[in-house]
Amino acid sequence: MEEQKEIQIMKRIVLVRHGESQWNKENRFTGWTNVDLSPKGIEEAENSGALLKQEGFSFQMAYTSYLKRAIKTLNCVLDKMDQDWIPVLKSWRLNEKHYGMLQGLNKSETAAKYGDEQVHIWRRSYDVAPHALAEDDPQNPKNDPRYAQVPDAYLPRTESLKDAIARVMPYWECEIFPRLKVMDSILVVAHGNSLRGIVKHLKNISDSDIAGLNIPTAVPYVFEFDNELNLKRDYYLGDQDEIRRKQEAVAKQGSAAK
Amino acid sequence: MEEQKEIQIMKRIVLVRHGESQWNKENRFTGWTNVDLSPKGIEEAENSGALLKQEGFSFQMAYTSYLKRAIKTLNCVLDKMDQDWIPVLKSWRLNEKHYGMLQGLNKSETAAKYGDEQVHIWRRSYDVAPHALAEDDPQNPKNDPRYAQVPDAYLPRTESLKDAIARVMPYWECEIFPRLKVMDSILVVAHGNSLRGIVKHLKNISDSDIAGLNIPTAVPYVFEFDNELNLKRDYYLGDQDEIRRKQEAVAKQGSAAK
Repeated sequence: MEEQKEIQIMKRIVLVRHGESQWNKENRFTGWTNVDLSPKGIEEAENSGALLKQEGFSFQMAYTSYLKRAIKTLNCVLDKMDQDWIPVLKSWRLNEKHYGMLQGLNKSETAAKYGDEQVHIWRRSYDVAPHALAEDDPQNPKNDPRYAQVPDAYLPRTESLKDAIARVMPYWECEIFPRLKVMDSILVVAHGNSLRGIVKHLKNISDSDIAGLNIPTAVPYVFEFDNELNLKRDYYLGDQDEIRRKQEAVAKQGSAAK
Repeated sequence: MEEQKEIQIMKRIVLVRHGESQWNKENRFTGWTNVDLSPKGIEEAENSGALLKQEGFSFQMAYTSYLKRAIKTLNCVLDKMDQDWIPVLKSWRLNEKHYGMLQGLNKSETAAKYGDEQVHIWRRSYDVAPHALAEDDPQNPKNDPRYAQVPDAYLPRTESLKDAIARVMPYWECEIFPRLKVMDSILVVAHGNSLRGIVKHLKNISDSDIAGLNIPTAVPYVFEFDNELNLKRDYYLGDQDEIRRKQEAVAKQGSAAK
């Protein structure tokens, strides 16, 4: 029995940021806008699934957001892994940060108009939210049937990173993380900022440092836990040079020069 | 209040049989073999989703099997409807009839070898099952991790239509149909024979007549109920001539002449 205690039975949560979307490609602020993956994004997602399969990963359960670009990334990953039969749960709480009035605007044009600094604040400050959508704006989530089951008071018209993380965490705490007690391997496919919230929590990253964390698209980010659910190790799966290049590309988005 | 009673609030369950698979194309017995959709099958599924959207359908929940060709058909349908965010539940009980030792064999070759009549019996009799898989057959579901949560006694090594229907019905009775009390519109994407079971039950079709029901691939089959869940009407959605041609094509499969 003493010996058994020393054996660390590993449990894993793998985070995947969705592949390139049409609006990533067009360099526009997306947020809760329900844009599709680009052909490159589908390819990225398929490669991600093929890599996970090749490296011997399998999952007992998967989570994603209500947004098509994350759902399709998940579908591609599970298809390539021949794991499309596993249970999938979707939640609006895993959605991207809501970008308020900026949704739909081109990042470079917005930078040219308001200045790099202001755009950088909107994109990368911890607690400054872009201007909120008007109540009658067609983009207001309260007018979208997919959020009809969500209490209106929970539905954002804009969000700072802090706001987005605050609505991600209850789902992480109540639904995703406790599953690891009864499961060994869980997949979460979501968005740059909803995943920042999870990583911030798991790695205890400060409010001021979290915006500097650039999660590359469609690269499996593996978190390993012992049986008591203590985090033991985290790493990106795949070619480390390519991953670094992807991270730098994400960091550069939204400068007027681009 | 009297007036309200007269208003029939319509509820709907829509059944969709998966699009053409690689093995439909190659005219092979598939059963529980996890083959992919053909490019034509993906197109069929997308058309089905586009038609449902065009006709104003929306769903609160969807069900499918553990098999890729049904799951991918569902994913394509929901994608085209912009409804990929709805909850989806998967169950092995919605799988195709298990074809035992016939799985993987070409239908025409099997007909040439055993005669059209024997193949017709295997394909279309109500209670004759093909020869069972051996326990150590790699195709035996007990050796497949996706069925690890299913009690072995439930896992078939072959099935007659009667057997297949018998394992579909508990899921229909306990999970799918009761949802209609609290939801208005449910989508079920499954297989020729698992759907035969549901239609047999809903329309009270006899054991001897059910094999003559040929459900065309990827054509939405709409069942409308009143608020007390009495079936009021059923119909195929779409061009009725094209649907008839599709049904005739399904009926002809597995003859040596083909």
